[in-house]
Amino acid sequence: MSVKVLGGIKVLDFSRVFAGPAATQVLGDMGADILKIEPPGGDEARYYGMTRERLEKFGGTSPSFLALNRNKRSMEIDLRHEDGKAIARKLAAGVDVVVHNYRPGVMERLGLGYEALAEHNPRLIYAEFSAYGRQGPLSHVGANDLALQAHSGLISITGEPGRSPVRCGSAIVDLHGSLALVAGILGAIIHRGQTGRGQRVEASLMLSAAHLMSYFYTEYWMDGTMHQPMGTANHLSVPNQAFPAADGEVVIIASTDEMWQRFAHAMGPETLDIPEFSHVFARRQNRVTLVEAVSAITRTKTCAQIIDILGKAKVVVAKINTIGEAADNPQLVAANGRIDLQVGEHSVGSVASPFQLEAVDMNSATTPPALGHHTDDILAEFGFSRDEIDSFRQSGAFGKAKATMDA
Amino acid sequence: MSVKVLGGIKVLDFSRVFAGPAATQVLGDMGADILKIEPPGGDEARYYGMTRERLEKFGGTSPSFLALNRNKRSMEIDLRHEDGKAIARKLAAGVDVVVHNYRPGVMERLGLGYEALAEHNPRLIYAEFSAYGRQGPLSHVGANDLALQAHSGLISITGEPGRSPVRCGSAIVDLHGSLALVAGILGAIIHRGQTGRGQRVEASLMLSAAHLMSYFYTEYWMDGTMHQPMGTANHLSVPNQAFPAADGEVVIIASTDEMWQRFAHAMGPETLDIPEFSHVFARRQNRVTLVEAVSAITRTKTCAQIIDILGKAKVVVAKINTIGEAADNPQLVAANGRIDLQVGEHSVGSVASPFQLEAVDMNSATTPPALGHHTDDILAEFGFSRDEIDSFRQSGAFGKAKATMDA
Repeated sequence: MSVKVLGGIKVLDFSRVFAGPAATQVLGDMGADILKIEPPGGDEARYYGMTRERLEKFGGTSPSFLALNRNKRSMEIDLRHEDGKAIARKLAAGVDVVVHNYRPGVMERLGLGYEALAEHNPRLIYAEFSAYGRQGPLSHVGANDLALQAHSGLISITGEPGRSPVRCGSAIVDLHGSLALVAGILGAIIHRGQTGRGQRVEASLMLSAAHLMSYFYTEYWMDGTMHQPMGTANHLSVPNQAFPAADGEVVIIASTDEMWQRFAHAMGPETLDIPEFSHVFARRQNRVTLVEAVSAITRTKTCAQIIDILGKAKVVVAKINTIGEAADNPQLVAANGRIDLQVGEHSVGSVASPFQLEAVDMNSATTPPALGHHTDDILAEFGFSRDEIDSFRQSGAFGKAKATMDA
Repeated sequence: MSVKVLGGIKVLDFSRVFAGPAATQVLGDMGADILKIEPPGGDEARYYGMTRERLEKFGGTSPSFLALNRNKRSMEIDLRHEDGKAIARKLAAGVDVVVHNYRPGVMERLGLGYEALAEHNPRLIYAEFSAYGRQGPLSHVGANDLALQAHSGLISITGEPGRSPVRCGSAIVDLHGSLALVAGILGAIIHRGQTGRGQRVEASLMLSAAHLMSYFYTEYWMDGTMHQPMGTANHLSVPNQAFPAADGEVVIIASTDEMWQRFAHAMGPETLDIPEFSHVFARRQNRVTLVEAVSAITRTKTCAQIIDILGKAKVVVAKINTIGEAADNPQLVAANGRIDLQVGEHSVGSVASPFQLEAVDMNSATTPPALGHHTDDILAEFGFSRDEIDSFRQSGAFGKAKATMDA
């Protein structure tokens, strides 16, 4: 399995909550040394969705923190404290990559802005993840995943026709943004190999959301078209939506006329293989009748039966799984998609990075760290003496750890 | 603006529709030379959502094709034809990266499998994008974005409580998968710099969707928790959802007690700054009353007024924009998020790659190519003579171009 792709790359990670931590987890999976700087009390995501039962069983580590923080080391540093700032600046002088998601101006005020750091460390790659970008009228506006689902227009096309729209259930803008940040950092590493110099890398919730919406924006820019929510259906083709089965729901996609022929023959040629449904335009026009005709058949069969029949006919079909059915589907493990972490006495699954490199192991992992667990080790590695570390602790540079449950 | 990050990198791109083309567009924005191999008639996405009006105005290029195919050159090759296969193999011997999204086994049958190509080109990076991965019980099952929204459990948490769930309105699994593929390819380029050897890179709709669901899976694996759709709300905090304004809807997020205090003081301390709402647990318990109390206030104000008040109070807020409002918001241009393309006599916007590298220009673009426009040029660059090219054309190696409207 030879070298890790990012072996030897040190990442100083000031980011919190989802997008930044998800990005540095991928870099950690690729072998980078992730030094997670947490404020006193820790990344607030440590406490998201915690209950008394989970606190007792899993030692205060939330599902989202566990999901996004393997392969990291944790330091607790109070950046409002002068010694804390000095420590952070010294670390930044000796790493390859800095990642942060503070609002524009915050890092500069801490003496940790790109220009200040690059002066002493011209090979530094400085990755900033913001809400709306560093420049422009909204650059100082705060946001989160839901805010960008709203701002981007994604919510406006998600929901049932004629009813209020809904959010996409997961933090997709955050997670998509995390991969954007990863791609930018990897690009900057390649560029540094060519030029010997680092650079600033930017990603944002807004660019991430806009990328997810890209073909809707282009269609609007072409001729003003704005699509509306269509439940599980979409505007491109029919059938391309959910249908009821005897024991659940399945989605069926047969966009082209050829796929529709295969589908109709496999499911019920008597009622489906008729001229009203044979052409793509006709199917769009006769959507309601078609959905009724298909539903009349699917209702009489189980999900497994429908998947079997349509799988053989090479028509795209899938069950609408619950989270449990999805998480426990054996295909996830077969595709190297699950990494198990030891949390106290429990083994807890986490989802692998969404790509695999055949010549390197992306799936070995250390468990998400306890808050501040590696503070002393890391400081020693960066040349601080035992006495200095003790004196920082006394001066409050690491803060006075106290857990909060405010999230 | 110096060198492009991927200057000199040649990518042979067999992928079609969304995820693969979106990935190679990002590589093209970074300076790679993308050779898009299209089957006779072209990538079917060229015809998605086309109408007679668009055909006339934009010369047969669909919104999604325009959105995801800038910075590429197009070749039309019939891979079912023996000469077509031979051409593809010769090209593959001289490129840095091959990208495809055929079902497992198809490229092998064409003589274009990884092992066969790597034998002659050990530096080759071979990027495969599949539905469920190359191995395991579902590896031969076809899928698309909606199928993985269903399979992954994402649909099960998207929608209104107590009603049938809905799809997330955009092809988020495809687009997230595109960045996974980009990150994998960039990682493999870095690794090749260290080892001199290419490797196989894998990404899939399933790993992409699982990554988007990662913290839901981990929560389920911890203690069996499965969340349900909550409209625009979520399970982590209150308020964290849409509220009605006099002229539209806004989302408001005030998760922590401190944010709630700022929110309550800014919007209406009389009815909001009360003990029943002051603590995070109390707000979750009194969700219905709280949402009513907040709505009573937001209904009396416009979106702009609410955004102004809460912006000043540093509470996260955003308008639920239409696609047009989102696409035309000046912040997108300010953050370098829009790239204009010349299509015939029209200028059409497209969304930039979702990250920016300060030292290189990511936003210069060539317009998505007409089908087969560069076939002859590329073949000449790879050493084919004029006579050979003519004879390929006569033998049908490029197919007999005919547009279809089947999508």
